[in-house]
Amino acid sequence: MPTILKLGGSILSNKNMPFSVKWDNLERIAMEIRNALDYYKNKNKEIKLILVHGGGSFGHPVAKKYLKIENGNKTFVNMEKGFWDIQKAMRRFNNIVIDTLQSYGIPAVSIQPSSFVVFGDKLIFDTSAIKEMLKRNLVPVVHGDIVVDDKNNFKIISGDDIVPYLANNLKADLILYATDVDGVLINNNVIKRIDEKNIDEVLSYLSGSNTIDVTGGMRYKIEMIRRNKCRGFVFNGNKVNNIYKALLGEVEGTEIDFSK
Amino acid sequence: MPTILKLGGSILSNKNMPFSVKWDNLERIAMEIRNALDYYKNKNKEIKLILVHGGGSFGHPVAKKYLKIENGNKTFVNMEKGFWDIQKAMRRFNNIVIDTLQSYGIPAVSIQPSSFVVFGDKLIFDTSAIKEMLKRNLVPVVHGDIVVDDKNNFKIISGDDIVPYLANNLKADLILYATDVDGVLINNNVIKRIDEKNIDEVLSYLSGSNTIDVTGGMRYKIEMIRRNKCRGFVFNGNKVNNIYKALLGEVEGTEIDFSK
Repeated sequence: MPTILKLGGSILSNKNMPFSVKWDNLERIAMEIRNALDYYKNKNKEIKLILVHGGGSFGHPVAKKYLKIENGNKTFVNMEKGFWDIQKAMRRFNNIVIDTLQSYGIPAVSIQPSSFVVFGDKLIFDTSAIKEMLKRNLVPVVHGDIVVDDKNNFKIISGDDIVPYLANNLKADLILYATDVDGVLINNNVIKRIDEKNIDEVLSYLSGSNTIDVTGGMRYKIEMIRRNKCRGFVFNGNKVNNIYKALLGEVEGTEIDFSK
Repeated sequence: MPTILKLGGSILSNKNMPFSVKWDNLERIAMEIRNALDYYKNKNKEIKLILVHGGGSFGHPVAKKYLKIENGNKTFVNMEKGFWDIQKAMRRFNNIVIDTLQSYGIPAVSIQPSSFVVFGDKLIFDTSAIKEMLKRNLVPVVHGDIVVDDKNNFKIISGDDIVPYLANNLKADLILYATDVDGVLINNNVIKRIDEKNIDEVLSYLSGSNTIDVTGGMRYKIEMIRRNKCRGFVFNGNKVNNIYKALLGEVEGTEIDFSK
């Protein structure tokens, strides 16, 4: 029953500037995670934690070089070179993230999806090692990556693909989405809570041309929490102490609860 | 039916000097692999290739810092920090190897076992992604690594553990061991060929106190080729053109053949 914390790519890097890192955010987030681990330790409670981060300014610009879009179809080309190029860019980003976490004494370890994931109609993603890591209180850090599909091509597996899969597979009870907005927004107002009572109304606002879904996948995030019957928060990871509070299960933002 | 080429750690690095790389060997080996790929291409033949390299001077000195030996029992300690430390050292080595291969146009990609392998009584090692990579003529480069076991501790998975598993799982028809000796040696002479006819005699020389098994796992290498009913060579990877010849299935050294 782990907690999964997704750190949006725009929290850790400036997407408009290739290979940029938001060091202030990264260091602060590491410190807040450290503080949250200490909180649980002092209470003699356990927290099993998984971190997921996207490609940010590392994965995207490199992947773009190898992506060919024709008649709306996306295919990757020149991948004899491209697969490694993307792998390496993501490794570099992931190294920076984990080194920073480790410098705060967080027992972070790396999970590189490109080594073992097949993302076809079905997602093949063996979590045996992740389960063993959690038993040892290590903190697996999974990242968006380039992976093979089942159609003789390739696919990007994003943080937003990884989170619901892991939530389901590892029976997560808390999913935390640190984004760059204050929560799920409708007409510029943060909805405090989404559950069975108001889900249909919320989704009607988030779909079609009415969408105010600035971060892209808000609808997807909500539906994944619903499908996995768990509890989660969408909150602003740029604001001081929000990551800490979220890890304690209480943060200002949108609470999404389908656990009952 | 891929070919698996194991590059011994002592071929690519100086084991007595932490973090050293034998650049002359690495560049030459990359060039010879390139030449072998061109040979097959010019003949309109296909070769599916997997490379495996050990920890060399990167993995071993770092792993040693976290290894506690008590009454002959090996356990890893302080792995909140150690797991990542070893992962990172191996990543650095693997990056160097793949970057060099790529500079010769070899479509090398990385497989990091620590991300997904559990090495308990049974080895859990999902090869779904590797199979898809081979279909696309990519060259997976697998390396020795730190992995979780099933006893709440950790284990080193070495190149010599990985090769027979992959050989078996992927039905390899050729296993090539590039070592720093000229082949399987008995009384300082290279045995030309090992097969069903002389295997018992050879093993009797390689076991117990009679062992002249300078590279450590020679007996294990032979038994693995036998168990997987395939063909292989143990040869000197330090000698010019031996890697090229081995990839063509003909190299001076010890031919081990249990394929019939």
